[in-house]
This record gives sequence, structure tokens and C-alpha cells, in this order.
Amino acid sequence: MAIEAPKKPQEDLAPAAAFSDAERAAIYRVIHARRDVRDEFLPDDVPREVLLRILDAAHHAPSVGFMQPWNFIIIRDVEKRRAASEAFRRACEAEEQALEPERRSLYRSLKLQGIMKAPLNICVTCDRARFGATGLGRSQQPNTDILSTACAVQNLWLAARAEGVGVGWVSILREADLHQIFNIPSEIAIVAYLCVGYVGKAYTSPELEVKRWASRLPLENLIFEESWGGLAASTNPP
Amino acid sequence: MAIEAPKKPQEDLAPAAAFSDAERAAIYRVIHARRDVRDEFLPDDVPREVLLRILDAAHHAPSVGFMQPWNFIIIRDVEKRRAASEAFRRACEAEEQALEPERRSLYRSLKLQGIMKAPLNICVTCDRARFGATGLGRSQQPNTDILSTACAVQNLWLAARAEGVGVGWVSILREADLHQIFNIPSEIAIVAYLCVGYVGKAYTSPELEVKRWASRLPLENLIFEESWGGLAASTNPP
Repeated sequence: MAIEAPKKPQEDLAPAAAFSDAERAAIYRVIHARRDVRDEFLPDDVPREVLLRILDAAHHAPSVGFMQPWNFIIIRDVEKRRAASEAFRRACEAEEQALEPERRSLYRSLKLQGIMKAPLNICVTCDRARFGATGLGRSQQPNTDILSTACAVQNLWLAARAEGVGVGWVSILREADLHQIFNIPSEIAIVAYLCVGYVGKAYTSPELEVKRWASRLPLENLIFEESWGGLAASTNPP
Repeated sequence: MAIEAPKKPQEDLAPAAAFSDAERAAIYRVIHARRDVRDEFLPDDVPREVLLRILDAAHHAPSVGFMQPWNFIIIRDVEKRRAASEAFRRACEAEEQALEPERRSLYRSLKLQGIMKAPLNICVTCDRARFGATGLGRSQQPNTDILSTACAVQNLWLAARAEGVGVGWVSILREADLHQIFNIPSEIAIVAYLCVGYVGKAYTSPELEVKRWASRLPLENLIFEESWGGLAASTNPP
């Protein structure tokens, strides 16, 4: 890559004030209203301009060394989705065996994916050598490219929610199956397999909380001060 | 964990319409205005209630099996930050050697962290065994807990930007150094080391783009249809 002389950075700095109360409320609302959707998908097509806005949000995620390692494979084809759905079924059977026996019947009762119900699936990948093997910020923590791609998924998810579009992340899939179904080169990492479509309704709390799989942890228990285990006296709610 | 009978899920579903135009504009604005901040930090303290809103946004990220594997270590202590800064310096020297020789002088000219300048550092960790070794969604893709934690970082980052607070993610740090400085048990993974503080100004484009380290890739080149390499005819902008 040719390297030109840097521009004067002052030209590119602008005031960065807090957003208005109304804007902040919208941002917190989308963060709190985002759900992992499995069963509430409508068959309606997601228009191209909406899809592009959502993908553009993903593309504006942070990336280590501005590497932008992601690709987005848009899947509408029923046969491809059927193959993914079949791969899910096999992975799910394997996962059930890995769970504590007393949790298996609840597990079986959960709807865990909308691969066929959602009109759109998106496979989000990470090209680990996009700008060469040793980019800025990856020599000491080589997996930061994968973390960047996860940040892109979160941007995609929030933008989608704001558009009335639900997203469900299916992690009960073997990467080797996805590589094979979608012809993904072996050196490309798969970060997320997403089900995407309009939704009529959504859960008001995480579905796994509603269905008693797990409960929300109190935030104050997750905050430490100065070092691991340090009591967060000054960050407890008033 | 005791498992109670699931509630009737219908009770917990509510309409999930698209957000208003003004709300969507705020959400896209924060996604596009978020920057990796290194040098624009102001010394002003971040009030407790602001910090809690930002951490609560992180805590509302998606997590595999609703595992919520994250912890947040809030670091204000100057000696601790000095130790992190020293660890950065060592990691940076090592990274420089890993780069192509022709990029080293540009690399040296970049400001890559605000560990001492930002009044607050936050180390975000992932407890990989929070609900046991084999949670829902991790038997086939064991690293999804790390990806969930990266999604929490992205929520934190967006909420911070909306509050006028800048965040910089420092990945030029050896995890072993961070484990030692902050007394983090070896089984706890470190996902992100963040510099956090109010900012007066911010770059209007990514700083690494302004300083010609890399350029934004065209989104249309990153979208495939149906399988890897599939031409995205129908998703090209009109």
C-alpha cells in the first residue's frame, strides 16, 4: 500500500459534544430493546436499501489497525438455508449431550434458531490476513481482528432493531459445515451466522430469561475497582 | 441453578416496530461518529452516574446462552496506569519489529494510546466458566463467550460517544502483563483494555485513515450473495 504524507490532523478534528437527551434516549432504547430473535420472524422481504443501511452500520464498527476484516454473505436461497438448518440439527443433538442431564428437557423445549423462518441469513466472516499477517495492534493480541468483527455484528444488530428488523445469532453450528455449505475458504474465519427479518413482536426481556434458562446478573456484582475483585464502592447505585 | 416452569411466553412479547426517523438518525449518527480516541482526552472526571449508564449499556449486550461473562475493572490509580503504560511501551517496541520496515516510521509517528491522559481505564474481561464449562451455544463454537464480550465493548463505546465520552481500545499490550498488573486470575480472559474520558474534539474520520495508515474499503466489495465470492448484484447501491 502506498503511503502518502499525513494530512494536518487539526483539519480533521471537530467538536465531539454529548448527544441531546432525545438522541441519547434513542440510543439507550435500542441497546435495551435489542433481542436475539428466534421465532418471531415475518416472511416479508427486507428491502435492499434497508439491508445496505444495516450492513453499512456494521462496516462502521471499530477494527484493529483499521483492518475492516469482515465480509457479509447474504443468503436467501432456500436450499442453502435448508443445508444450514440441517447442520444446526446435527450440532444441536451434539450440544444436548454436552449439557447437564437435568437441563436437557428445557433445552429441547427452546426454539433456538430461525434459519428457515427468517427470509434472510447473513454469514459474517473475518479475513485474518486482509492487510497482511502482521497489522497494527495484532502482534500482541492476534485475535483482535475477530473481536472487531464481533463489534460489527453488534452494530448490525442495533441498526436492524431500529429498522424493525430482528436478528438471531445461531452459534449451534459447526464451522466446518458452514465452510462447506457456503464455499468459504479455510483461511477465512466464520464469526457469526445470523437470521434476519422483520418481526411483529419481540420479547421485552431476553428470551432465555423469560424461559428461565438464566437470570440477569446485577451490574454492581460485575464491576471491580483498580484490580480484579476490588470492591466497587464508588460505582454502586446511590 | 434451580429451573422453574417457563412462563407463558406470549405475556412477554410486545410489538417491535421500527424506531422513528429521529431515533434512527440518532442511532446511525452515533455509529458513524464513534472514534477510537488516543489523544483528545480531557482530565475531567466521568461522574458515577454516567459511568454506570455506560456500563449498563455494555451489560445489555447479547451473550451466548445469556451467560453475561463480562467483568469491568475500573482503573483510576496513577501507579496502575503507569504500569499499563510501561507494558504498552514494551509491547509497542516488539510490534514495531513485526511490521514491514517501510511502515515503521509512520507507525512511530502515530499516537496509539491514552492510558495516562484519559482519567479512567477499563479492563473488560470474560469469565469463560461463568455458568459451567458447557453452556448453551458454546459446545460447537467455544469462543462465542469472547465474542459476546466484544459486543459488550461495542455497546459501551456507543453509549460513551453519546455521553460525550471518548473510548480508545489499546490492543498493543501483552495479556500476561495485564493479568499481573491487575491481579486477574489466569482462567479469566482479557478482552479489551480501554482508555475512557471526556473529549473536546474528535476525528471526523478514523484517525488511521486521516493519517494514511489504511483506507475505508467500499462496502459493496465486502458483500457476497449466497456463497463466498458470490457477486452482490442486487445489493449494489442504485
